[in-house]
Amino acid sequence: MDLVESLGEGESSGGRPPELIRFNAQHGYVAGVDIGGTRLRMMLADLNGKAVAQWSTQFTEKQKAPKAVCTIIHEGLREMCRQAETTVRKILHLTAGAPGITDVDHGVVRSAPNLVGWDDVPLRAMLERETGIGTIAENDTNLAAVGEHWQGSARDIDNFVFIAMGTGVGAGIFLHGRLYHGAEWSAGEIGYLGVTGTLRESPQMRQTGQLERIIGGPGIEEQWSRRLKRDRRQSDRALSKLCASQIFDLAQEGDPLAIHVLTDTAQILADAIGTISLLFNPRLIVLGGGVGAHECLCRATEKFVAKNEFAHPRLRSSSLGTQAQLFGAISLSLAAVNGTLIS
Amino acid sequence: MDLVESLGEGESSGGRPPELIRFNAQHGYVAGVDIGGTRLRMMLADLNGKAVAQWSTQFTEKQKAPKAVCTIIHEGLREMCRQAETTVRKILHLTAGAPGITDVDHGVVRSAPNLVGWDDVPLRAMLERETGIGTIAENDTNLAAVGEHWQGSARDIDNFVFIAMGTGVGAGIFLHGRLYHGAEWSAGEIGYLGVTGTLRESPQMRQTGQLERIIGGPGIEEQWSRRLKRDRRQSDRALSKLCASQIFDLAQEGDPLAIHVLTDTAQILADAIGTISLLFNPRLIVLGGGVGAHECLCRATEKFVAKNEFAHPRLRSSSLGTQAQLFGAISLSLAAVNGTLIS
Repeated sequence: MDLVESLGEGESSGGRPPELIRFNAQHGYVAGVDIGGTRLRMMLADLNGKAVAQWSTQFTEKQKAPKAVCTIIHEGLREMCRQAETTVRKILHLTAGAPGITDVDHGVVRSAPNLVGWDDVPLRAMLERETGIGTIAENDTNLAAVGEHWQGSARDIDNFVFIAMGTGVGAGIFLHGRLYHGAEWSAGEIGYLGVTGTLRESPQMRQTGQLERIIGGPGIEEQWSRRLKRDRRQSDRALSKLCASQIFDLAQEGDPLAIHVLTDTAQILADAIGTISLLFNPRLIVLGGGVGAHECLCRATEKFVAKNEFAHPRLRSSSLGTQAQLFGAISLSLAAVNGTLIS
Repeated sequence: MDLVESLGEGESSGGRPPELIRFNAQHGYVAGVDIGGTRLRMMLADLNGKAVAQWSTQFTEKQKAPKAVCTIIHEGLREMCRQAETTVRKILHLTAGAPGITDVDHGVVRSAPNLVGWDDVPLRAMLERETGIGTIAENDTNLAAVGEHWQGSARDIDNFVFIAMGTGVGAGIFLHGRLYHGAEWSAGEIGYLGVTGTLRESPQMRQTGQLERIIGGPGIEEQWSRRLKRDRRQSDRALSKLCASQIFDLAQEGDPLAIHVLTDTAQILADAIGTISLLFNPRLIVLGGGVGAHECLCRATEKFVAKNEFAHPRLRSSSLGTQAQLFGAISLSLAAVNGTLIS
């Protein structure tokens, strides 16, 4: 809760939605929150969409309860306002992203497996009560898709799929120029897709899915451990503790075992992209998330995707990285303030 | 070319798009064509959307060339006008459905594997030249989806997937209240989806796909033959010649072998519906086409779909059957005449 991030490169966004032309952008502010599984990130932006402050904190288990999260968010708003030399009363709108299926119309997080006790949480109402600020609650991967469309790898592309690969695997779907949510807010739950060569499985809401188990971060790390063991290198403690993106770094440096892990992951990801392409025929796939945004995964996956005549979407790594959700949140809040809610 | 169908039950549609209120519906007409793999069907409707004539003909191989098809369609228009005691000049718009990937913006059929020589055929321009009538060219399964939305099983549902199972297997996707085509007009090519328990395959445009090979009509008939052989009933000539929907009829009567075939088909179809549901989360799946519209397939598939917590779309059989494409064509032509092209 003490950590105040300095403003980095990607943060002063420069661009703005064309409809927002204001002579005094500091007349008011909008805020975005990304409630992650282990970390909460926030951004404050002026009405031109320019980030003026950021804040983030690590959760303790206890702090992950819905009410505690709302208190932390309120504290984050105050802290960012101090940075920007303004007051919370000047914040006109807030958008919060949660890592789970979210009913945007009712502002309710239906289920978030990585946050204990988050079933049917009325996040929007709770935040509005806590902060007094009009709020949107959205799924975090959907926010990342909106962010990439506004400021990132999917600028000007009205038909794309954002794939988030971190601990979990999910997709944000952008069609007909706006987010597509599905009938029960669960469109894009690709972590439950079946994987070629495995047994049939009936997806269960409170269990992780087949694709996620295999190419989510922990699945990749498990494959790496198995290969290390077979190769009798498991005694190297430093090697055995690598996380997925570090394994991909090693692959980039030419380590043959790591290349195997990268290639297997890329093949399975390419199969999923093949399925997505058969159904959506998107113009672009953006690979994001802590594991998915790794450049060498994008390149390795492209080779497999090229073999599929029905899947010629361009593949791009996320250009906003862990900021994508926050940019998406700011974009939705700007649209809400402007009365032109697009998604 | 000699066959003139009498007007059947489903044809005098009754309903009409709400924006079409005309005092003299016979002021003009619109026409729809469904170019099938073996049969061409046509419908003429007044400006209230009421069918006033129908016509259909079987193709010879030679008649399937694009130019010959346009000539047949022109002849069909004249024949329907004779039936309705009007003239071709009173037809204000025509929509033609082709069994292949169709670029609606350019009116070009990109590829239609079941019609030899149909690669990049400028169907819209050819028909406009032949008939002098403004034309839309669309994919036939997409037309069927529009038809079911207008007059059939998906009335008032703005988020559904129409699955066509006949010789081929494909899907028409209706999202945000309108058809979704994808970036290169190939959204919904589900015939190429992988099937659990089979080997990885890279979809190739000019070959049939894995799902289609297994649960398309010929695939079902092949499974039936294999089971008959194992059961030593293949000597029964009448049994060995059954088509897929007749095999389902037998299952309905309680034949154990036929029930096996039905159950296997339903399981694989349910897997595909599971995949579709993970990605689109549709409110409804409509099962159509000569094989897919069979009531007992819908019931058998429902049982498997129920096991999937992420797939709770309602399942319904098509209520328009082989007329769905024609209703869709009429609906698009009415919208075009009315200047409110919705899809």
